[in-house]
Amino acid sequence: MVSIAHDLAKKQKEISVSEFFEKNKQILGFDSLTRALITSVKEPVDNSLDACEDAGILPDITVQVEKIDNNECRVVVEDNGPGIVKKEVANVFARLLYGSRFHVRAQRRGQQGIGVSAVVMYGQLTTGKPAKVRSKISDEDVAYECDLILDTKKNKPDVIRQDFVIWDREHGTRFEINVKGKYVTGKQSVFEYLRGMAIVNPHVRFTFIPPDGKTVVFERAADKVPPPTREVKPHPEGVELGEMLTMAKYTDALKMTSFLNSEFSRISHRVAKEILERADVPADLRPSRLKLEQAGAILDSIKEVRIMTPETDCLSPIGETLIRKGLKNVLGELKADFYAPPVTRDPKVYAGNPFVVEVGIVYGGGLTKDDQVQILRFANRVPLMYQQGACAITQAIEAVDWRRYGLEQRGGKGIPYGPAVLLVHLASTKIPYTSESKEAVANIPDIKEEIELALKACARRLKTHLNKAEKKSKARVKFEIVQDIIPMIAKKSAKIVGKPVPDLAGTITKIMNVVWVDDEVVHEKGRHKVSVKLYNYTPKSQRLHLHMLVPFDNIDPKTLQVQPSEVREGNKVTWEIKRVPSTEVFELRFDLKGLDRDAYDENEVYVSGIDAVSVVGVEVLPGDWDLEHIRIVEEKDEEPDEDEDQVDYDEGGAEVIKDDE
Amino acid sequence: MVSIAHDLAKKQKEISVSEFFEKNKQILGFDSLTRALITSVKEPVDNSLDACEDAGILPDITVQVEKIDNNECRVVVEDNGPGIVKKEVANVFARLLYGSRFHVRAQRRGQQGIGVSAVVMYGQLTTGKPAKVRSKISDEDVAYECDLILDTKKNKPDVIRQDFVIWDREHGTRFEINVKGKYVTGKQSVFEYLRGMAIVNPHVRFTFIPPDGKTVVFERAADKVPPPTREVKPHPEGVELGEMLTMAKYTDALKMTSFLNSEFSRISHRVAKEILERADVPADLRPSRLKLEQAGAILDSIKEVRIMTPETDCLSPIGETLIRKGLKNVLGELKADFYAPPVTRDPKVYAGNPFVVEVGIVYGGGLTKDDQVQILRFANRVPLMYQQGACAITQAIEAVDWRRYGLEQRGGKGIPYGPAVLLVHLASTKIPYTSESKEAVANIPDIKEEIELALKACARRLKTHLNKAEKKSKARVKFEIVQDIIPMIAKKSAKIVGKPVPDLAGTITKIMNVVWVDDEVVHEKGRHKVSVKLYNYTPKSQRLHLHMLVPFDNIDPKTLQVQPSEVREGNKVTWEIKRVPSTEVFELRFDLKGLDRDAYDENEVYVSGIDAVSVVGVEVLPGDWDLEHIRIVEEKDEEPDEDEDQVDYDEGGAEVIKDDE
Repeated sequence: MVSIAHDLAKKQKEISVSEFFEKNKQILGFDSLTRALITSVKEPVDNSLDACEDAGILPDITVQVEKIDNNECRVVVEDNGPGIVKKEVANVFARLLYGSRFHVRAQRRGQQGIGVSAVVMYGQLTTGKPAKVRSKISDEDVAYECDLILDTKKNKPDVIRQDFVIWDREHGTRFEINVKGKYVTGKQSVFEYLRGMAIVNPHVRFTFIPPDGKTVVFERAADKVPPPTREVKPHPEGVELGEMLTMAKYTDALKMTSFLNSEFSRISHRVAKEILERADVPADLRPSRLKLEQAGAILDSIKEVRIMTPETDCLSPIGETLIRKGLKNVLGELKADFYAPPVTRDPKVYAGNPFVVEVGIVYGGGLTKDDQVQILRFANRVPLMYQQGACAITQAIEAVDWRRYGLEQRGGKGIPYGPAVLLVHLASTKIPYTSESKEAVANIPDIKEEIELALKACARRLKTHLNKAEKKSKARVKFEIVQDIIPMIAKKSAKIVGKPVPDLAGTITKIMNVVWVDDEVVHEKGRHKVSVKLYNYTPKSQRLHLHMLVPFDNIDPKTLQVQPSEVREGNKVTWEIKRVPSTEVFELRFDLKGLDRDAYDENEVYVSGIDAVSVVGVEVLPGDWDLEHIRIVEEKDEEPDEDEDQVDYDEGGAEVIKDDE
Repeated sequence: MVSIAHDLAKKQKEISVSEFFEKNKQILGFDSLTRALITSVKEPVDNSLDACEDAGILPDITVQVEKIDNNECRVVVEDNGPGIVKKEVANVFARLLYGSRFHVRAQRRGQQGIGVSAVVMYGQLTTGKPAKVRSKISDEDVAYECDLILDTKKNKPDVIRQDFVIWDREHGTRFEINVKGKYVTGKQSVFEYLRGMAIVNPHVRFTFIPPDGKTVVFERAADKVPPPTREVKPHPEGVELGEMLTMAKYTDALKMTSFLNSEFSRISHRVAKEILERADVPADLRPSRLKLEQAGAILDSIKEVRIMTPETDCLSPIGETLIRKGLKNVLGELKADFYAPPVTRDPKVYAGNPFVVEVGIVYGGGLTKDDQVQILRFANRVPLMYQQGACAITQAIEAVDWRRYGLEQRGGKGIPYGPAVLLVHLASTKIPYTSESKEAVANIPDIKEEIELALKACARRLKTHLNKAEKKSKARVKFEIVQDIIPMIAKKSAKIVGKPVPDLAGTITKIMNVVWVDDEVVHEKGRHKVSVKLYNYTPKSQRLHLHMLVPFDNIDPKTLQVQPSEVREGNKVTWEIKRVPSTEVFELRFDLKGLDRDAYDENEVYVSGIDAVSVVGVEVLPGDWDLEHIRIVEEKDEEPDEDEDQVDYDEGGAEVIKDDE
């Protein structure tokens, strides 16, 4: 027995991080030849974009893929970024776990210090060839160029050739590598990756030269670099006990109050004092003397004290307009029926990291009905193309009961079926990827829950649309029948009894007995022309409130005939309609100006103060409606998920809730 | 611009591997509190089992989980392994990328040198507390005990207390840690993990003490340690160009022939010479002088030269009997109708690593019909409990068209629905996990394809079973009708015409016009009693061959009335049935002895030499049947997958193929 323990001990060895990844290259995204090629493009492009944005440069990226032979490709990525100083080039491109963004809490594409060096390692492993890097910074006359390999036993770069060369760029970086890989077209391809990038990074110009040489340019849709995202301290929410102790050990702060105030975001001196008081920890304790129990007590009181939600300027969400544009772009010729207004949630925090979730849904039209819905996943403005099944985004989609929102789904779980596209974007100062290949978001409960809430909020818009469409089409059929048949009967009866045909408006009204609301929006000459008509097909005159979610500031006042009785938060607008006589029509009309064509393509109309059974075409809010006590449905998510099943449905099937908290 | 490149350069830093994983703990399997607890149990258990097996010890493992408070648990794992020598304890338990198994090409549970140290890091990060390790090796009188933390800035262990203590074990290791985690029961729980472990590791005794103190013991089902798996050199198949060059650079061999022979498995001196000759590389070239093109040429000729399939003694598959037992165990009270004979494929190679795939399928009985099939994934005898969607096993299941095998599946892709359980085990000298958390197999094309082939082979058995069951039940209905109605008609007619009721056997025979084969197997007093009956309901006498897949050596010769005309591979047995007169019955009977009850629970019967349309109840092999030219269906997979759709179906719907290669 003795020999065995000693024998085993002899085999114990350190493993260099690059040996580890060399033998586990699948973890880095090199499991199949097609994926390996995409990874080899993604990683340098991520770096180029991050560098350009850090420098405030509008990125101009060229990606070239050449076929060397059946299983070997050359990838070239060239940018107009700030360049890399000579002494850092080798480390940046040929050393794993080395980088500038790992220790920074800010939204970046690269965060691990692994990516592009992993590509270099994969290239040399599979083709035996070095990477070639050229970089020029603007205060140098020449560019620095070198051939690099990664010494995997030491995890250090090995520069096997270097030189200075003339380069007609003012500044920028060019990365060239041969890899074992397979160029394909289709859903999981370099082209699709670049298209996805172009959608969520409209400020970037991508030039793609595929192996057949037929260059494709994805032109910029915006000519401003997104506002730089600010680096932040960790938000106190979700910080771990051991982390708190380590931070206290290494801080420069001399007192606990200043430690909490300086090392965390959103903790003012006043809040720090309050936390320490609750935790029964002296405010002037030296942080390095903080004990385990004290740290625990501080974490407990952080949960009790009211701390502001995280800053938003460390995040760069895509935004509603761009999501809408992106979806239209993805769909191309397949015109969809309905673009649900995208939902951007308020920032939340997991483990000290702020994050925000955005969702867009498209429905109908040319989309196929018999397949699973199409899922578009993005993280920090990068499309996720692999490992869909492992991703918290997919898992959140699977957890929603889509039958409630008009999609088909067996047993109310799993990926739903139907003519829809679901887009989800997660932006965070730290995306918790399931692996170093950065293709799937880990199943962090707080994140998954936020994604579910965002999906449901957006899905409710879809549901409203589908309900409305269904009810309208039913009402229309009824109208057509009534308006065809009644006059025929009247005519025939009149003929038989030898009397004139009577006026039928009253009769039709009696049969229909509804207020029919029909709305429309048309885009014309840069304006959105909005019309809402109320047909009173009831025997008495009606009085009601009409509510719309519409950007009030964009309404052209000259076109607005009826002034609203109330405007809230700039977009919840209410009109009091005092009287619509029986058999008459009331029309509300106005123009919206200064909006992108895509920014407004369906009205959201609600009415209140009228019995729900009498209205067709819109949702009716409860009878005792009062702006103070109603929030429009998409805000409902603030409630805990458990309450989900207790939501009330009004007659029409739409959800409305009372804010009686 | 200059300042930006320089500013960015200043931020470039090395990242220690433990800092990296501290900030990316989700990659290691600590994304949610329930999963974190399971990971904290899995990692030390993996280590314990590997150590016991390396030492040839029958493992006896105790796992205890205590609830400290709502979100904190204490995990204790104790084994009877060989122990760890004092100077290695700290490194083994508190240093990432350190271990004995990473550089070894052999089937082990642990392969990364990360696992248990990651648990220590997670524990200290979330609870601020160290791990406690005690270990004793058999030639020492006392055990060594220490409290450990991992210094994440340096990735080095920090021993904060150590001592020698009396321990009444002769040898073994005890690991104790406090972690933030949540103890739950259900599908993804510590209990289920241990149950899965017990199924595929029947030589291990697991004692589980859950928080409520109600100890559960999973007793050993086998009292032998599985034969030790041998360490192997890489198989030349799938070795990468860069890898070949590196190996050539570092080898001790002085000539290319001895390099190829000594560094790879399955390359004899003769084969080495043949490879080099084809590649036009001198046999006595110094390996360190090998050029890129030469290495490429060698790789090309390796593909052309016939190289033996990999050794199997480096792998430890579960085996058919154990898979069957395991499945019965999982199902417990839910008795299933049918256990398809499990399939263990021949070993294959990916990237130089041998691997083998095993599949078992269970169908019907108490399993629910309306849900997705249940998937049980195992890798190197460890159950995979998370990231099902990311796993090549799941992806292979989704890629099979299960409608062809009798399960429901929308569009012929995705996880099928139906009353079935699919078990897949992958054993390899290196499991390519998608991440360090070791919960999903990466989508390596060669592996996924093998899994698909194994699934299809096993699914064919299911299909045969379902076909047979369906046809039998149809034939039975027909018989019942014929045998009820014909006599009634005969009786009535006889009465009307005043004649006696005629003998109906001939008439019924004319109407049925089939040979009906009915087989049965009953387990009684440790024996399997097998019976195959042929009812000749055709107007003429029949002659045919009867084939069975049955272990011939287990047939009790005394019970066998008719000697077979041929026995192949010990289990393909043929009887020539010379004459079954019209309207008569032929019965073949025998007993099987010395088999486990579970080892034989359905007969596989085929006939030949008879027109397929005349037979009900079994598959008919083609008319010109000849043992030389027929392989029984489960071996069909050797053909490339592309041919899948060209399989012939006989009248009965069963697949038969001709081996005309």
